[in-house]
Amino acid sequence: MQLNLNADLGESFGPWPMGDDKRLLNVVNSANVACGFHAGDPLVMSNTISASKQAGVSIGAHPGFPDLQGFGRRPMTMPADELRAMIQYQLAALDGMGRSMGLPISHVKPHGALNNMACEDRIMADVIALAVRDFDASLIFLAPVMSQLAIAGTDAGLNVALEIFADRAYTASGSLVSRSKPGAVLYTADACIAHVQSMIEAGGIVTEEGAILPTEFHSICVHGDNAHAVDTALKIRTTLLNQGHELLTLPQLLSTAA
Amino acid sequence: MQLNLNADLGESFGPWPMGDDKRLLNVVNSANVACGFHAGDPLVMSNTISASKQAGVSIGAHPGFPDLQGFGRRPMTMPADELRAMIQYQLAALDGMGRSMGLPISHVKPHGALNNMACEDRIMADVIALAVRDFDASLIFLAPVMSQLAIAGTDAGLNVALEIFADRAYTASGSLVSRSKPGAVLYTADACIAHVQSMIEAGGIVTEEGAILPTEFHSICVHGDNAHAVDTALKIRTTLLNQGHELLTLPQLLSTAA
Amino acid sequence: MQLNLNADLGESFGPWPMGDDKRLLNVVNSANVACGFHAGDPLVMSNTISASKQAGVSIGAHPGFPDLQGFGRRPMTMPADELRAMIQYQLAALDGMGRSMGLPISHVKPHGALNNMACEDRIMADVIALAVRDFDASLIFLAPVMSQLAIAGTDAGLNVALEIFADRAYTASGSLVSRSKPGAVLYTADACIAHVQSMIEAGGIVTEEGAILPTEFHSICVHGDNAHAVDTALKIRTTLLNQGHELLTLPQLLSTAA
Amino acid sequence: MQLNLNADLGESFGPWPMGDDKRLLNVVNSANVACGFHAGDPLVMSNTISASKQAGVSIGAHPGFPDLQGFGRRPMTMPADELRAMIQYQLAALDGMGRSMGLPISHVKPHGALNNMACEDRIMADVIALAVRDFDASLIFLAPVMSQLAIAGTDAGLNVALEIFADRAYTASGSLVSRSKPGAVLYTADACIAHVQSMIEAGGIVTEEGAILPTEFHSICVHGDNAHAVDTALKIRTTLLNQGHELLTLPQLLSTAA
Repeated sequence: MQLNLNADLGESFGPWPMGDDKRLLNVVNSANVACGFHAGDPLVMSNTISASKQAGVSIGAHPGFPDLQGFGRRPMTMPADELRAMIQYQLAALDGMGRSMGLPISHVKPHGALNNMACEDRIMADVIALAVRDFDASLIFLAPVMSQLAIAGTDAGLNVALEIFADRAYTASGSLVSRSKPGAVLYTADACIAHVQSMIEAGGIVTEEGAILPTEFHSICVHGDNAHAVDTALKIRTTLLNQGHELLTLPQLLSTAA
Repeated sequence: MQLNLNADLGESFGPWPMGDDKRLLNVVNSANVACGFHAGDPLVMSNTISASKQAGVSIGAHPGFPDLQGFGRRPMTMPADELRAMIQYQLAALDGMGRSMGLPISHVKPHGALNNMACEDRIMADVIALAVRDFDASLIFLAPVMSQLAIAGTDAGLNVALEIFADRAYTASGSLVSRSKPGAVLYTADACIAHVQSMIEAGGIVTEEGAILPTEFHSICVHGDNAHAVDTALKIRTTLLNQGHELLTLPQLLSTAA
Repeated sequence: MQLNLNADLGESFGPWPMGDDKRLLNVVNSANVACGFHAGDPLVMSNTISASKQAGVSIGAHPGFPDLQGFGRRPMTMPADELRAMIQYQLAALDGMGRSMGLPISHVKPHGALNNMACEDRIMADVIALAVRDFDASLIFLAPVMSQLAIAGTDAGLNVALEIFADRAYTASGSLVSRSKPGAVLYTADACIAHVQSMIEAGGIVTEEGAILPTEFHSICVHGDNAHAVDTALKIRTTLLNQGHELLTLPQLLSTAA
Repeated sequence: MQLNLNADLGESFGPWPMGDDKRLLNVVNSANVACGFHAGDPLVMSNTISASKQAGVSIGAHPGFPDLQGFGRRPMTMPADELRAMIQYQLAALDGMGRSMGLPISHVKPHGALNNMACEDRIMADVIALAVRDFDASLIFLAPVMSQLAIAGTDAGLNVALEIFADRAYTASGSLVSRSKPGAVLYTADACIAHVQSMIEAGGIVTEEGAILPTEFHSICVHGDNAHAVDTALKIRTTLLNQGHELLTLPQLLSTAA
């Protein structure tokens, strides 16, 4: 099976480092790069583009709410025109820097609360998908399987890449089990690998009750915010490669699929 | 003579309006658009691009220091790599938004303290000019006549448009008389028009002592931050047109000149 | 009847003015001063404290969400400990500056979305009320009549001043009619004055259907964000004084009431 | 000899931790707490005050430039009234939060570029010292020995605590050797301890050439931004205690001295 591994990168800010991007770039195929609103700053972005290019990793814009202290994880509500402009600004900033360095963005994945809210709220999902399409209709839209965001992306005519999470349990409706509930997060590499494998075999989401929700998916979201997370991501990668799966960047994967 | 009128636009922020952009777009040929660091926000930028396109006004990025409270007028010192990335981020943000709306940026003009410091400081001017060139070597670099910024732009191989100020007196060395000194600023439309005409006739800067510093120039900087300023700008425009001068956008003017 | 007029002041930011604070200080008895998160900056705050002191106007902290672009009007959700600290930081900043200038804060009124959300959400209202009480239990808590915020303030043991709005219609449950509905906002001075008078006579809220919801109230909220608003506020003041009502600062009014 | 150990604390921001404050609080007597402009946020500040109180460590405001990305290390220039208000705002925010938690600030130490610039620039030093005095004349002003900042503090009538750096070499004039020069920073605990001891014995600064510049000093600045730094700080503490010196908070030390 052809698959993609994606992770969030470039989440340092000024004097504050976050994550081990250097190691993570050897694991993933596509990087979701923070654009300066919830994390990242112009220099961090420039360095992340440069390192991604060198590692052969495709990049995508990872726009978030203008909330540095809350890391874009605090829900915010804003008018549609502000939301649209806020997203296009972030896409443009990263894409333009990437273009000048020979690595334009090839995908978009909303961050944090922006992503979570749009997975449930179709109106918000539409604003985001249309903002992306009107910015550049050729961009890949990376969205969780079975989310309003994914549906909005498809309806907007975008090339949608569907993602599953290696370390998160799914409810019966295909959404993520809330972090506040027991079993929501898988903490060991073995558990994550087993979870991913079960979904590959099932051809869809495997819920916490063990039910199967059939759905195609293209990408597996992994994390790199600490050494343990990078180790887990690396093990997932190695296992997938050993099992004969092919790991590709999102543009490689989606052009192959088309 | 072929000339250009430029002014700063899009300097509102969130709930706070600034300037009468609507009227000013009927006066100038090229707009320097704030990019969200010293003024402007994504929605203001989007609206400014849209209005500029409708008015047939060319736009340029007007990058400034990350200092909203100080409106980018407070001098800051930062490492070259941070300065470079900060400028490219702002260029990219406005350019990308403009591209998606059918009006990419065609010029760059640094704002406030960033501009003032680079007019005197060749090292800083070089960082700025190279940041612009490496972002997009075809951009027009709008810089004050006889400044280090203009020299740096030329040395970087950029297409440099030289500007004079309608309302500012010049020292014997061709720099602006400090605002703290009497006579530094011309307050009436008649005085501004006379100043501009004397420089057109002289083919160069006319200093406060009346000396002539020969230099070509392409653009006249006018202001729109209050009703009086827009009136003055309009009178300058009308006078220049009545005298048979041709007013062009920067890309029109520079392609004609080439 | 003894009453108080309150309004939001100090909402300028850096180069962007807002409102006519100078005139408004001749109208109101108590000023809700922005604390730098949704509006105001340290210099604006210092100048607002100084002008309020000179005008004999009591001041209160007007804490808002950390959202300058959205003017604190965009709903945000944050953990209780962050919300608590965010409020206490703003209270402390204004109070300390006021103390050093001889005018400590005497009341607190949440701003914008923070206020609106807490009027409906008892949990959030409790976090705010307890943050205020734990900062300084002697502060007056200015809250809309019949709101969760008012109840939370009372339950926290705070001295609660209840406010009505001169220019807003009320629903049958005593909350404000949404701005999106016709008749939600009263635009003329005469309408505002009639609205206030009807509520004084009724001894409670008069709803849009004309029903009376009995409630004591202490303060009338007026606006000063444009010349028209200040004119209206002045007319309300003059009318109330002509009718023999006494207009007092919140500390004067509440100590009299006690 | 009675001495004080001080270090910067509370420099985390939102999701980004910095330093090992927990261990460092067992080392130092006085903490310079970031106030939200260059580092720290309201919740970090609240937690830092609470932990300092529990550890018996006195706190001081550590105001910095409004430059989160640059960590307050990028020089900025602003008008005196803005600088004054910016400092008082930060003092007030931390002090008010501290008061409500039973630990008001007892000292002030400017941070980063604000400190460095004021050590050389008497005009700026005066603005800072007067801002502190007018906020609360009883505050201890912690300033480097032989700096304009120290002189300005004394002239403003403040109680000045003079500090030396354990890990920095001094020039012949008593200023710090620039970090860009070899030998500017001492990297081993032994070197730092020897440096401190030589200055205690000499009764003044020992320059990089070995000359003695006699001066009293009260406090030794140590660092805690990484595990190595905390180890070094702990060794300095242990050595000083073993040698019979007494380590006190700044208020203890200065009241004893008076």
